[in-house]
Amino acid sequence: MSVTDELLANNSDYARTFSGPLPLPPSKRVAIVACMDARLNVYGALGLAEGEAHVIRNAGGVVTEDEIRSLAISQRLLGTEEIILIHHTDCGMLTFTDDEFKRSIQDEVGIKPSWAAEAFDDVETDMRQSMARIKNSPFIPRKESVRGFVFDVATGKLTEVNA
Amino acid sequence: MSVTDELLANNSDYARTFSGPLPLPPSKRVAIVACMDARLNVYGALGLAEGEAHVIRNAGGVVTEDEIRSLAISQRLLGTEEIILIHHTDCGMLTFTDDEFKRSIQDEVGIKPSWAAEAFDDVETDMRQSMARIKNSPFIPRKESVRGFVFDVATGKLTEVNA
Repeated sequence: MSVTDELLANNSDYARTFSGPLPLPPSKRVAIVACMDARLNVYGALGLAEGEAHVIRNAGGVVTEDEIRSLAISQRLLGTEEIILIHHTDCGMLTFTDDEFKRSIQDEVGIKPSWAAEAFDDVETDMRQSMARIKNSPFIPRKESVRGFVFDVATGKLTEVNA
Repeated sequence: MSVTDELLANNSDYARTFSGPLPLPPSKRVAIVACMDARLNVYGALGLAEGEAHVIRNAGGVVTEDEIRSLAISQRLLGTEEIILIHHTDCGMLTFTDDEFKRSIQDEVGIKPSWAAEAFDDVETDMRQSMARIKNSPFIPRKESVRGFVFDVATGKLTEVNA
């Protein structure tokens, strides 16, 4: 059985006790941008329930054009007001450089990605960069509460990054 | 108290019973690309535990350049092999068009986004589009298991989209 089929079987159990539907706009009016890391369970770590928050995730939890797009839709069409950014300790993005990664792809398939890999060498510095990208975007209307945190994969605790 | 502070208080409870750290590579070797929708609790709906899967999310669960970046890092550096895509019923992306959304931003702030908003008018058609973008990317090495599903926000059930 593939992992996909195994997770589908889990979904049957989930649906058995599911109570829906809930309203489309997030009830807590918050959007979260977090790393895709498997150890960072955003619903668990923040005690979120279904229907409460938009959750946006990618490699690193960095803010690129696609996160600006998602946040613009979140705030402008679905009423969110606060933004929480989450990076974490022991992140894979600390283990390589953009140049190395793109060179390895070019060597293997003959094409160099035209996009940045967004690797970083310091979690807090990159968090400030992600916050700065949000603050600088003309497409995100509400920036009164944009706060960044580092999730510790050893303890489960969030620590705020000073802007 | 802000919502952010409320969720931080929840994090203290989470950390109290947290047992870590787990290894960096996802133990189930799977990456999930899902919509940011608040009602779609990916860990819950798939019965995932911490450490098992990469979770990538954005507005619509669409595959743009940033999802190709994240999936390339997930497969090439962290060993994932299967990809699960999740769209859902009652999606906000069905409620507007790119032209309308970008015009409204231009009217309000004077700048038209240079990016696509990625709105769609049919969930299954857009899922096939997202799968096609993955299949077409030279940067994602493992495409043997790329499967797409629609999550029903009324029942909690996943239904597979035929490619």
